[in-house]
Amino acid sequence: MKLYDFTKSYQLFEEAKRYVPGGIYGPRTPNFLTFGSYPAFIARGEGCRIWDVDGNEYIDYMCSFGTNLLGLKHPKIEEAARRQQDKGDCFTLPNDLWVPLAKKMVETIEGMGWCVFGKNGSDVTSYAITVARAATGKKAILVARGSYHGAHFWCQPHGEGVPEEWRSHVHYFEYNNVDDLKRAVDEQRGNIAAVILTPHRHDVFRDQELPTEAFVRAVNSSAEKEGFLIVIDDVRCGFRLNLKGSASIYGYRADLNCFGKAMANGYPIAVAMGREELKSAAEKVYFTGTHFFSGVPFAAALATLEEIKASGAIEKIRDLGGRLMKGLEQAAAAQGVRVTLSGPPAMPFMTFAEDPGFEKGRFFCGEAARRGIFFHPHHNWFVCAALTDADLQKTMEVSEECFRLTREGCGG
Amino acid sequence: MKLYDFTKSYQLFEEAKRYVPGGIYGPRTPNFLTFGSYPAFIARGEGCRIWDVDGNEYIDYMCSFGTNLLGLKHPKIEEAARRQQDKGDCFTLPNDLWVPLAKKMVETIEGMGWCVFGKNGSDVTSYAITVARAATGKKAILVARGSYHGAHFWCQPHGEGVPEEWRSHVHYFEYNNVDDLKRAVDEQRGNIAAVILTPHRHDVFRDQELPTEAFVRAVNSSAEKEGFLIVIDDVRCGFRLNLKGSASIYGYRADLNCFGKAMANGYPIAVAMGREELKSAAEKVYFTGTHFFSGVPFAAALATLEEIKASGAIEKIRDLGGRLMKGLEQAAAAQGVRVTLSGPPAMPFMTFAEDPGFEKGRFFCGEAARRGIFFHPHHNWFVCAALTDADLQKTMEVSEECFRLTREGCGG
Repeated sequence: MKLYDFTKSYQLFEEAKRYVPGGIYGPRTPNFLTFGSYPAFIARGEGCRIWDVDGNEYIDYMCSFGTNLLGLKHPKIEEAARRQQDKGDCFTLPNDLWVPLAKKMVETIEGMGWCVFGKNGSDVTSYAITVARAATGKKAILVARGSYHGAHFWCQPHGEGVPEEWRSHVHYFEYNNVDDLKRAVDEQRGNIAAVILTPHRHDVFRDQELPTEAFVRAVNSSAEKEGFLIVIDDVRCGFRLNLKGSASIYGYRADLNCFGKAMANGYPIAVAMGREELKSAAEKVYFTGTHFFSGVPFAAALATLEEIKASGAIEKIRDLGGRLMKGLEQAAAAQGVRVTLSGPPAMPFMTFAEDPGFEKGRFFCGEAARRGIFFHPHHNWFVCAALTDADLQKTMEVSEECFRLTREGCGG
Repeated sequence: MKLYDFTKSYQLFEEAKRYVPGGIYGPRTPNFLTFGSYPAFIARGEGCRIWDVDGNEYIDYMCSFGTNLLGLKHPKIEEAARRQQDKGDCFTLPNDLWVPLAKKMVETIEGMGWCVFGKNGSDVTSYAITVARAATGKKAILVARGSYHGAHFWCQPHGEGVPEEWRSHVHYFEYNNVDDLKRAVDEQRGNIAAVILTPHRHDVFRDQELPTEAFVRAVNSSAEKEGFLIVIDDVRCGFRLNLKGSASIYGYRADLNCFGKAMANGYPIAVAMGREELKSAAEKVYFTGTHFFSGVPFAAALATLEEIKASGAIEKIRDLGGRLMKGLEQAAAAQGVRVTLSGPPAMPFMTFAEDPGFEKGRFFCGEAARRGIFFHPHHNWFVCAALTDADLQKTMEVSEECFRLTREGCGG
């Protein structure tokens, strides 16, 4: 097999650096992956596949960082989007899908009485904690250390250029650690507006962890006893694990929920939702954006929610992801390489044993990329419903070879 | 003429209130306009026209709050967007229009060496002030009182649920007031990272004001002398008044520029740009969002920038807006109504004399809406290039009648 060449990608990346700070920013920068053994720019996509600017084809297990749930260019979603585009997208006022989507969301997500629409996940996580503050009159927000809730000042992972005060009232504890949660609650007792949590722990640079029953119980009981709210940041998991909201999987009694990513299969929309009794507080909170009201993502979201249900995508993805995880475990074992597969099957992640600096992971993922399989060494992966048995078969063949190379190259 | 009926709009609005706090939030809520004499939901649009859910047709002078520059569903922009959509939109990595658009932006906007792409205007104003802080090591941001720079915590007009500390380091002065600018600079001397300014004053609830030469000189010389940066928030004006960036019209020596709205004729994209020497500071600032990297808005933006130039849209809009302003002045005078038309012709605004509570304005705009002309009583308007002489003619006829009604109904 001829290994992929990324000449055009890196020529374009060099050119990008002239016009964009760092060339590409955020987690998509080649500097964050294995520099040189990944593509940098994508030319087209379809289903679970992407083609880079050098013409290389990949089975994409990042799925556009989670937005691709049903497959890129899914005919039903594209058709719904196109029908709306034919009527127009961004108007002076909301369009006629505003109510149908709001109704659909409220009917779909467990326990939620209302919703607001934004564009980015950050828009809705920021909105949700503000509603919690408006409703409780308290300021403190409890956040699990290392959890990602967006790029806004209060929660962004790096704070370069952000004054300390703009990140005040945010207090950290360890996910899944009941004692540390209690410590944080004790320290902020009487001041807490909300805890914000991802449904399970899916931080970068670590194995995923499902919440323990004891932790969920402690979150629920602390919130009830102390009078603070539970915000579930379901942007990354939402609609990928179930249709009711991921809080229900683990038993979190969510007061506010945040969705985005997969909900419109790639069209830009995000949603914050809350319990009915928080509606009057929500009305007081300022929230707007010019493109929040554009109709095409509403059409895509409605079609996506319908198609997830009609096609059994959730079960399909769970099955596919489960077989991916099992297959990788077997392929690694066959090559004498120790790996940990973690997370729900719909969004698995893999790390190597004795690999604190992620060198083995980066080597493996780089070798896989050069053979047409797009994994990520630091960030959880995503499985989409367009994946086939043949794709899984190819993935396993490439992976077994890459495990062998990792063992030989890094003592994997 | 049969006046418009908004039955379906308000039925839908009532239903919306069950699912969305306030039904519709932000400046698009019917509560902010003249309740009952405006539509609430739009079903479709084309060119300068929108049709509401009751089937009423409007000439739209709000132009989707500024995104509609060339006309809704402009064939060339739609074609470019569709071509990209056929390749896919939201990928795991940026698409192959990343470099072409970045290059085009840098070549187009005066004095700017680089750009980053976001989704909302708020994304890029927040990013720009952060780069200013990272570059200067200072914290204070000077903001003109009443200017709108977005919905993020530091700048949103209402702060319900937002802790005071998250709005700290923002210091206000009066636009166009050299003495007050000097006062603010004196008070924050040594702490100032940047001043952020709209190119001209286009705050809600007041006549627009162009910056005086003395004010621009004072901004430029203070920035130079004190070592702070000038951020121009060109989100609303950008690409509507010229192609080089509106800072150049008035002589602001912008260090950072923010664009959005019109730049992709309705597709969601926003851009922050900066001088070459700020690039290394910009590289350190955290900035990302899942949909920031979607390709369709890049295709639309490239096509929009080309079409603005090829079609002479800027000159056309200036001419159309100028005739609109002159026509409204004449129609008002013919009915003995005193009005003030303000702002650049491409984005005019009209207020009534002796109308501190904007009752006359709301009455006039409501009557105009019921006759098919969509104006706004509190927010500047926008003119798009799809407007025709016949549209202007109809606008004048309706306006003259509405001026008469305003005189009779409100002592206009």
